[in-house]
Amino acid sequence: MSKSVGAQRILVVGSVALDTIRTPYGEASEALGGSASYFSCSASHYAPVSVVAVVGEDFPAEHRARFERQGVDLSGLETAPGRTFRWRGEYMAELGHAHTLETQLNVFAEFHPRLTDAHRKIPYVFLANIDPDLQLEVLSQMRRPRLVLSDTMNYWIARKPDRVLEVLRRVDVALLNEEEARALAGETHLTRAAERLLEQGARAVIVKKGEHGAQYHSRDERFLTPAYPVAALTDPTGAGDSFAGGFVGLCARLDRADGDALRQAMACGTVMASLAIEAFSPERLLETTPEEIEGRVRQLHELVHYDLFPMF
Amino acid sequence: MSKSVGAQRILVVGSVALDTIRTPYGEASEALGGSASYFSCSASHYAPVSVVAVVGEDFPAEHRARFERQGVDLSGLETAPGRTFRWRGEYMAELGHAHTLETQLNVFAEFHPRLTDAHRKIPYVFLANIDPDLQLEVLSQMRRPRLVLSDTMNYWIARKPDRVLEVLRRVDVALLNEEEARALAGETHLTRAAERLLEQGARAVIVKKGEHGAQYHSRDERFLTPAYPVAALTDPTGAGDSFAGGFVGLCARLDRADGDALRQAMACGTVMASLAIEAFSPERLLETTPEEIEGRVRQLHELVHYDLFPMF
Repeated sequence: MSKSVGAQRILVVGSVALDTIRTPYGEASEALGGSASYFSCSASHYAPVSVVAVVGEDFPAEHRARFERQGVDLSGLETAPGRTFRWRGEYMAELGHAHTLETQLNVFAEFHPRLTDAHRKIPYVFLANIDPDLQLEVLSQMRRPRLVLSDTMNYWIARKPDRVLEVLRRVDVALLNEEEARALAGETHLTRAAERLLEQGARAVIVKKGEHGAQYHSRDERFLTPAYPVAALTDPTGAGDSFAGGFVGLCARLDRADGDALRQAMACGTVMASLAIEAFSPERLLETTPEEIEGRVRQLHELVHYDLFPMF
Repeated sequence: MSKSVGAQRILVVGSVALDTIRTPYGEASEALGGSASYFSCSASHYAPVSVVAVVGEDFPAEHRARFERQGVDLSGLETAPGRTFRWRGEYMAELGHAHTLETQLNVFAEFHPRLTDAHRKIPYVFLANIDPDLQLEVLSQMRRPRLVLSDTMNYWIARKPDRVLEVLRRVDVALLNEEEARALAGETHLTRAAERLLEQGARAVIVKKGEHGAQYHSRDERFLTPAYPVAALTDPTGAGDSFAGGFVGLCARLDRADGDALRQAMACGTVMASLAIEAFSPERLLETTPEEIEGRVRQLHELVHYDLFPMF
């Protein structure tokens, strides 16, 4: 992270995993993965990050060292007896969907987030995709956070839709992909699905649309950003968590969550996602620089910006 | 059209047809259709339009009267012996694609655009989807037009790809939908497809992506607009030609084709397409007002606009 006096700390609660992935552009074996990993490699460019997650005794020291070089606080990264969460997946030519070949939850199966007093005071929070009951448990322990972003997945929407909706009501912004938004709202038209979620009590939702960008909906704001045009798409894994990292990251850095900040935060999320998918694992996220991030945010802005003039 | 002192005239060469259409939201029988119809109902809100097209002896006087009420110059609308071009199509729930049930070219089969001297001097031109050989023939007769936009379709890309590419090289901006861009470029990745077309000599292309908006690519500019979020989608027919009408319309109205004007022209195209698809036939296009158009352009701008501030 480049220094910023006012930057606030961010808490992420999620998974740290070892991923084995094949895409049309290559493969990676037992590479660093998991929602908390992508998120913290992304967000740590903007503000200091504390991770609450669990790994097994086999978690490589080199991964731990990389987080630490990035300034990530691992005091909440528990080492439990057993093996680290492993995921094996594959993407076909279209790259839209991961085909899960194998999931070994291992120590993650018994994950129960333990927050210290210091964690509870952190003002910016990302509740990555875990059981919504655990998300609610974390939320109830937080002391008046300024911005909480949540993620989820179809697995929980199918099994615990009411709990997922309860999370949506309790957080500031809920992140969903297109299918998740449709499934949770029971409505295929995307804009109407987002509106339905607001009617059901969500304060704001961000719908991730992959190559078509992302849209933010709250009761009084609607905002849309295209995807950053990536030349060298390699592995889509972690795009959503990296988006979350840029989004919460900018808000924490500026200590702002007003409309203007949220719009630029959407751009930061988009740019961090674009970096994440250019390599396996969070490689590119770790290598990137403030100059590169700022350059892409400027390009993304340029892609949609124009000064409106009167016509009639 | 609301008056504007500097507005330049626009020429459209295309089809005037009678459409019979069924969508999940209703149906229309023998309604006014065709590329030149949608285009001129759209563009005439911005600048005066002259149509070069052909109809049969059965073309209803009421349609002619509607064009004329809109100030459209029909001196180039030839009436040929025989029946007007008819198209019958249907859209399924997804509304992405029309299923053509019947095409009766009738008088359109022998259409050969005849330009008067006055037509040849018109500075803004839309070459709607007709045989690329006819498009080239029209082009060769024009006297130094300031902006020429072309359209095409898969039918011509499959049969006369070289002639379609020749049109792309000779016009200022070529309009294509996603599939057409992919087919003509022989490249599935959309941004790369657009770049390939530029390498093959196109000056600029606009790729229409339906509900995902449209993107403009030239050698030194790239610009993207989302779709205007339509609440009451009724019939997608004519969206592309209505887009063209807003795009060329604004440029002709301002007599400008520089970067800033093109960006707002993309917004005008998007808004005119949004109006077209809210009703069968060009109904909504004919009813709309400068206030409504300007209001939607402002909303579309608001949807993507933000002021960039420094982050690092």
